[in-house]
Amino acid sequence: MIIAEVSIIPLGTKTPSVSKHLARAFRALQGEQNIKYELTSMGTIMEGDLGEILRVVRNMHESTFDGEVMRVVTTIKIDDRRDKTLGMRGKIESLLKKLEH
Amino acid sequence: MIIAEVSIIPLGTKTPSVSKHLARAFRALQGEQNIKYELTSMGTIMEGDLGEILRVVRNMHESTFDGEVMRVVTTIKIDDRRDKTLGMRGKIESLLKKLEH
Amino acid sequence: MIIAEVSIIPLGTKTPSVSKHLARAFRALQGEQNIKYELTSMGTIMEGDLGEILRVVRNMHESTFDGEVMRVVTTIKIDDRRDKTLGMRGKIESLLKKLEH
Amino acid sequence: MIIAEVSIIPLGTKTPSVSKHLARAFRALQGEQNIKYELTSMGTIMEGDLGEILRVVRNMHESTFDGEVMRVVTTIKIDDRRDKTLGMRGKIESLLKKLEH
Repeated sequence: MIIAEVSIIPLGTKTPSVSKHLARAFRALQGEQNIKYELTSMGTIMEGDLGEILRVVRNMHESTFDGEVMRVVTTIKIDDRRDKTLGMRGKIESLLKKLEH
Repeated sequence: MIIAEVSIIPLGTKTPSVSKHLARAFRALQGEQNIKYELTSMGTIMEGDLGEILRVVRNMHESTFDGEVMRVVTTIKIDDRRDKTLGMRGKIESLLKKLEH
Repeated sequence: MIIAEVSIIPLGTKTPSVSKHLARAFRALQGEQNIKYELTSMGTIMEGDLGEILRVVRNMHESTFDGEVMRVVTTIKIDDRRDKTLGMRGKIESLLKKLEH
Repeated sequence: MIIAEVSIIPLGTKTPSVSKHLARAFRALQGEQNIKYELTSMGTIMEGDLGEILRVVRNMHESTFDGEVMRVVTTIKIDDRRDKTLGMRGKIESLLKKLEH
């Protein structure tokens, strides 16, 4: 299980607002059963199997294109830790615990 | 006002757990009055003035070093939109509204 | 054809030097026939088919793990432009031409 | 001395081609005496003092805006190593040496 963050930027959209294009990408994620996800103001954070996440991110990337969008810059950041399993929640809790001391 | 995301990675820490080093970085942010922030499992998202955010990120980066940490990779992603002001919450709400349709 | 940049960071290594671990990742790329690549001081830039690049980046990510490396943060940035094909060289030349004016 | 990579993306442009806007950003870098830089197909890599690099990146970011460009996403990745000084060239040579073995 890994944690990943994906950020998708459509270029050449005529206006600075891109949320209607990101909505198409996000819908490609919503049907997934095996991936936990969280929407932030800078992207989407996911928890799941690396292969499945790469497949879904590719779907999200493809879904962003349409007649109006001819260029998309997608960034995926993978945090893959194999000595123990923390998860999205566990990572935050681990930091908060250190902050208490 | 901009939205930014910062991610800090200390290298050469002997163990895969780095939260005690990130706690030092995070403390450098906690005293700030003019920056709104949110902790995620992949970094910290901030809202505020660009100059102030760059100053604080530099403090966070510096605070990550200590006798044990001799290399730090810090990534700052700035989303600067000047046709209208959305904020961290506004960006998410804009996407959620598009998803309803 | 897309252009992508991959950056791999092994965490928890004994020293701040990580090049011996990155060498394993890079070897996973060297055998590839259908991907052009270029090594920079901040990562590796590739040109090729998106599906192939994602497969290779996954191999590179996996190859970074070993007995000493139990956590790896890998970032892939994909620039996918479908109105015309530029390539790594074409992108730079396009910018240099604009700089002349 | 640190190594940093900056990537600038103007959003909402009329076409997917953004090189004319990136040329403005790049010109803000060209006059700098104390920063070594290298243009790649995915961004610009710099070597120099952290404070100076942050100042220049901010200038590059600001220069990208104009009447047509009202939103810019800028990413700065800082690799700051304090146990020894490698530089852009040294980092690549260190990896190439490991690949020979």
